[in-house]
Amino acid sequence: MSSPATFDGELFSSAKCVITGGLGFIGSNLVHALALAGAELVVVDKLVPEHGGNIDNVAGLDVEVLMTSIADPDVADAIVGADFIFNVAGQVSHIASMRDPQQDLRLNATSHGVFLDTVRAVAPRARIIHTSTRQVYGRPVRLPVDELHPAHPVDVNGVAKLAGEQLHMVYAHAYDMAITTLRLTNVYGPRQRLSSDELGFLPVFLRRALRGEQIEIFGDGTQRRDCLHVDDVIDAILTAATNDVAIGQMYNIGNVDNHSLADIASLMVEITESGASVQLTAWPSDHERLDIGSVHIDGSKAHRELGWLAQIGLRDGLRRTISFYHEHPWYLSSI
Amino acid sequence: MSSPATFDGELFSSAKCVITGGLGFIGSNLVHALALAGAELVVVDKLVPEHGGNIDNVAGLDVEVLMTSIADPDVADAIVGADFIFNVAGQVSHIASMRDPQQDLRLNATSHGVFLDTVRAVAPRARIIHTSTRQVYGRPVRLPVDELHPAHPVDVNGVAKLAGEQLHMVYAHAYDMAITTLRLTNVYGPRQRLSSDELGFLPVFLRRALRGEQIEIFGDGTQRRDCLHVDDVIDAILTAATNDVAIGQMYNIGNVDNHSLADIASLMVEITESGASVQLTAWPSDHERLDIGSVHIDGSKAHRELGWLAQIGLRDGLRRTISFYHEHPWYLSSI
Repeated sequence: MSSPATFDGELFSSAKCVITGGLGFIGSNLVHALALAGAELVVVDKLVPEHGGNIDNVAGLDVEVLMTSIADPDVADAIVGADFIFNVAGQVSHIASMRDPQQDLRLNATSHGVFLDTVRAVAPRARIIHTSTRQVYGRPVRLPVDELHPAHPVDVNGVAKLAGEQLHMVYAHAYDMAITTLRLTNVYGPRQRLSSDELGFLPVFLRRALRGEQIEIFGDGTQRRDCLHVDDVIDAILTAATNDVAIGQMYNIGNVDNHSLADIASLMVEITESGASVQLTAWPSDHERLDIGSVHIDGSKAHRELGWLAQIGLRDGLRRTISFYHEHPWYLSSI
Repeated sequence: MSSPATFDGELFSSAKCVITGGLGFIGSNLVHALALAGAELVVVDKLVPEHGGNIDNVAGLDVEVLMTSIADPDVADAIVGADFIFNVAGQVSHIASMRDPQQDLRLNATSHGVFLDTVRAVAPRARIIHTSTRQVYGRPVRLPVDELHPAHPVDVNGVAKLAGEQLHMVYAHAYDMAITTLRLTNVYGPRQRLSSDELGFLPVFLRRALRGEQIEIFGDGTQRRDCLHVDDVIDAILTAATNDVAIGQMYNIGNVDNHSLADIASLMVEITESGASVQLTAWPSDHERLDIGSVHIDGSKAHRELGWLAQIGLRDGLRRTISFYHEHPWYLSSI
């Protein structure tokens, strides 16, 4: 991690840390950061085939891996005595959530209810960070989107993620559990599965840029997004985990930096120097309904209360990310 | 129904109307109103023992009753060709939702996802009204609470009801289904199960008043609530069902009338003339965390867009309600 940390890494030295979804994109980056800090690491990850997890993401690290659902009763044994629980597991595909709503509700909401009951039973004093998504807001009614902005998700994934997040907040307040939930904006960086078309636009754009293919953008390309390098996200997670002010709170985790889809794609084309191109194309009729326009997240609550602010601009972040994938080309092709 | 209707009752004459939860409090009042309007009636109700349903609530009416879950595949046959679907089924107990979170998530959220898939398959053009609750808002951050107020539920019931509501809105927008969801405030009136302590404070207060017992209020009794007579709710549901402006929309359904818990209890004591009394008592420690303070719902969106406004004041509504229970004393004692 090269961004200046806003937390005391010593706090994780020899601490028992459980990371659900720890074989996935964000989870495995967290595992790497915690390994560096000297933590005792337990990963719970079901490795759902369509998701972003891969055992190679934690290759070479001293990690206990339990390959099961967070709703599995066996999880209890793995989390007894945990000091920190990073509950990152979930499904991120909007398309999959509309294809199989029940699966998304199970993976992002009801399983988390079971997991919270397990944690409450065997590790009630653990510090818990849950990762949610700014997608719970749906189409913004005002910009920037602060935490009091209404949450009207446009797909089942957003509904389920919101329910999962709110279950965490209910348990925090009803049972005095030390839980924080973070609504992350669009995240990119090393160890993201690039081979799927269903895990967000950033990995798709990156794959096509790296392969010298055409990057297709629906609409006129002017829609804006905050992009967040995963190192900034890890910094936010560990900052929240070590600040009691964050207990029982929900925070937006965004970037003051904000770019249009066309600019993001062009920057990828420029940095990869692969001969990729950008093509604007009309919305497919079934997709347009789910379009949410431009988004910009107001992250001032996290800055004010936790002192956290994203440090990595898009150009710098993409450079680092593209270097990583040049060194690890299997991420582009593996399933 | 004695309040002036803001809808054309003719629209329901010979219309096939499906009412889920139609043996319960609000559902059965809806069945009675629709029977009067000459509708063809199909009720889907699982009659979960702890809930408010009772087959006697529709006694004497010409109704087809399917006693099963809304998630049962058999529901498809019952709703083919439906003109209107009133999806009122759900669990209302906050205490039960904390005791068994998975059951509440199933009854209020995931089952509704299955039901929506069934409706989409066999009755995609039906006009659908879903009843949600103002409890999704949790503890108000400002009063009155309009539809853009953040929804931060304080119990699993609120989380699950919100997810169920949002699934309806996702289906409305993604699949062009004619769905409206209504966030109801505290409802009272005929056919409410009074024998349970878990179905809200109004039935508990009413039972104790009718029996001449002590009405216990936690705290100082100054917390305020909007109380809504069920006839006003039925009027709101049928108004929304017959106005295309409401399609794809969510509305608060409240009352401009707003009263403290102490005043509500005192009024019940006065009207019942039963010798009941009111006792203020300290919050039990495990309940206080779920306290949400005073609530007042801003119902101006429904008034502005649909012309709907509650017509029944608390004194008048309680008089009618108490008369009903004097005539039907079994509601106080039956399980």
